[in-house]
Amino acid sequence: MSQQKSLRVGFLGFGTVGSGVFRMLQDNYAAVTDRIGFPVEIVKIGIRDLSKSRDVDQSLLTDDLESIVNDPSIDVVLELIGGIDPAEKLVETALLNKKSVVTANKELMAKQGSRLVHLAKEGQLDLHFEAAVGGGIPLIQPIKHQLSGNDVLKLIGILNGTCNYILTRMDLEGSDLAEVLKDAQALGFAEADPTNDVEGFDTLYKLAVLTAIAYGKLPDVSGIYRQGISGLKSEEFKYAEILGYKIKLLGIVEPVADGKVLARVHPTFVPLSHPISSVNGVNNAVWLHGDFVGDIMFSGKGAGGDPTASAVVGDLIDVGRNMAANGPGSAIPFGVGLETESINELSSGYYLRIRVNDQPKVLGEIAMVFGEQEVSLSAMEMKVLDPLAKVGEIVFLTHKCKEKNFQQAITELKKLASVRSIEAFLRVEDDRL
Amino acid sequence: MSQQKSLRVGFLGFGTVGSGVFRMLQDNYAAVTDRIGFPVEIVKIGIRDLSKSRDVDQSLLTDDLESIVNDPSIDVVLELIGGIDPAEKLVETALLNKKSVVTANKELMAKQGSRLVHLAKEGQLDLHFEAAVGGGIPLIQPIKHQLSGNDVLKLIGILNGTCNYILTRMDLEGSDLAEVLKDAQALGFAEADPTNDVEGFDTLYKLAVLTAIAYGKLPDVSGIYRQGISGLKSEEFKYAEILGYKIKLLGIVEPVADGKVLARVHPTFVPLSHPISSVNGVNNAVWLHGDFVGDIMFSGKGAGGDPTASAVVGDLIDVGRNMAANGPGSAIPFGVGLETESINELSSGYYLRIRVNDQPKVLGEIAMVFGEQEVSLSAMEMKVLDPLAKVGEIVFLTHKCKEKNFQQAITELKKLASVRSIEAFLRVEDDRL
Repeated sequence: MSQQKSLRVGFLGFGTVGSGVFRMLQDNYAAVTDRIGFPVEIVKIGIRDLSKSRDVDQSLLTDDLESIVNDPSIDVVLELIGGIDPAEKLVETALLNKKSVVTANKELMAKQGSRLVHLAKEGQLDLHFEAAVGGGIPLIQPIKHQLSGNDVLKLIGILNGTCNYILTRMDLEGSDLAEVLKDAQALGFAEADPTNDVEGFDTLYKLAVLTAIAYGKLPDVSGIYRQGISGLKSEEFKYAEILGYKIKLLGIVEPVADGKVLARVHPTFVPLSHPISSVNGVNNAVWLHGDFVGDIMFSGKGAGGDPTASAVVGDLIDVGRNMAANGPGSAIPFGVGLETESINELSSGYYLRIRVNDQPKVLGEIAMVFGEQEVSLSAMEMKVLDPLAKVGEIVFLTHKCKEKNFQQAITELKKLASVRSIEAFLRVEDDRL
Repeated sequence: MSQQKSLRVGFLGFGTVGSGVFRMLQDNYAAVTDRIGFPVEIVKIGIRDLSKSRDVDQSLLTDDLESIVNDPSIDVVLELIGGIDPAEKLVETALLNKKSVVTANKELMAKQGSRLVHLAKEGQLDLHFEAAVGGGIPLIQPIKHQLSGNDVLKLIGILNGTCNYILTRMDLEGSDLAEVLKDAQALGFAEADPTNDVEGFDTLYKLAVLTAIAYGKLPDVSGIYRQGISGLKSEEFKYAEILGYKIKLLGIVEPVADGKVLARVHPTFVPLSHPISSVNGVNNAVWLHGDFVGDIMFSGKGAGGDPTASAVVGDLIDVGRNMAANGPGSAIPFGVGLETESINELSSGYYLRIRVNDQPKVLGEIAMVFGEQEVSLSAMEMKVLDPLAKVGEIVFLTHKCKEKNFQQAITELKKLASVRSIEAFLRVEDDRL
């Protein structure tokens, strides 16, 4: 046992998560002290703008963030700022100054995680980032530890609460995205600039981190296919219901060869029989299939101050326990350069909605195009939209085929005089296809 | 880094789980070696009966289990025998001989876990038991680590795959328990002597272990209320469906005062809106509500050789990593003597089915009894079973009330001339009541 009297903590950032961590450490002070063996002492809180009022002892506050990572009396730094600059430099300095770090920063871990974890390992320090993915849901450590003997044959995540909230409401209400998004912004479930969430960047960073944990190496984020939900129309939800699916923004990764994965983020048709289809609202979930564990799912609140604080404090307790045991730090490094396969090589089912001229032989012409590209059909719905103008709408569900063949089929369909427009296509995650 | 060339492992037991672990270590040899930093070497396999043929190098086999825990060349012992005797003595000897231990033994951990983990901690060793609860689902370590800052306000588990399989089939098929049980035995989903599963002992041991992790102390197993599924009749499933519930054998624990919990195992009405109600077949799940993390659920295969092997190998990899880092061992001790509240103090909703004489005023008399015991009713279904004999059946759903009041009401109901029999009662886990 160490003779340490307290675990001295410095905060970088004091937004929703930071203040949640502060409150959790106060509310559960006795239990946290008991688990670590000595109390947590909050030494400094670094914020950008000192003029904003905060409900804490003012003498703790500073806008000199560097002073925290350079303070020799601080044992652990909680990095809760987000983004790359200045978080990267601050975390690096903290580690070089022999401080353990707990971070909730998915972008930083997705881009610089390997380097930083190696730095922590060299210094026999802890660098934990459970809060970076899935808010309060334990995901990173269970995959790193309890599931680490498995070959992860597929991992599927609902990793962004904002998008899942929007999709759930579009599904329930039949509303347009713009409408729901405005509402979500008013309610505080979406940011004023929703690009990071809605365009799938947030999901992509989280998927990159999970991939590094599951496969031991970070892929370059540019190697992960990304499509957000901004183009989704309410019609797709109607057809999804008819066909027995829900639409979810998923991050999916699967191995395609030794040392190579196919990783992608896109809105997806998920069959009702898949447990992830019933994860609604701001909840997140990760479903994975391991060669020995089989199918497993973790679900819960994936965002928000309190759930994210839960993960940060869990990590902080582990840092404290390690210090109490005089342990060498438990950072488990991962590499970089995991190879990624192009989305063109994906084998998937597809949903396609097109508008056509409602005339004889139109279906025959379309079926010929699919046939030439070796895309076989599993289901079809057809309806006449405007009998006078002779406009029809056709929805197709394909069996599994290669993405490049499906895309080529779309290119060819556009050339047909009878095809007026390609309205939408979505990938379908369904083993029955 | 250590100069260690391999992690030398001895097996105690080579049944379904042991042979699953053996196969997993072979199949995923390269990945496991990579994660630890050096290979796992299986040195000895201890079994009871050498005459039974096993598909492994015969020179590894021994029926002298003591020789394994006393072998100075062995680093880690995998205890996969189950039960108390001789597992307890063997684990103790292994720890005293400075070997880390990984065990899947819930009964041992529920009864002697505190002592053994303290022994491991004193020796700076690892003692992991993820496989003891929920098969391959990471539960123990996530509650011990990532969720450890939370006050666990309620924990609910489906912890026995055999019972969940039986209940799922009774629900789907309307069959009797005896019928389904016979079938489950033929299919290998239930043991020849099903007492341990069907009477709730297995669930109770697992609940005790989860309680120790969540609240830091083991309760005495005799302080946990236990009721199995053997008395369940098919009628209850019909009424459950009418009322919007599923019947699940649950282990439930919640704090009732500082250092005191109410822990119980019983078949339970669970509303369809609760995510645990849709965990079917041999799957297990743990749902918990933490003060900061909110609601969270883990689900997956809770039994079987391969999923359980996944947990054992995950723990083994952690032991290896710790050895590679020359760490002090990561056993986190828990105490004993967690106080338990009597089931009489439970506040719950109740389902009750009784047979009555179909005569005027019968409902009034019954309602009077409930009223006297301060049990208020939420729903009622009444039907005439035999118009000639004037036998009726009434099903009640109560609002939340004290168990002792509900039991007193039953005692009083039995005294009424109009009440022919108490057919069944079940606790209802429903916050709306």
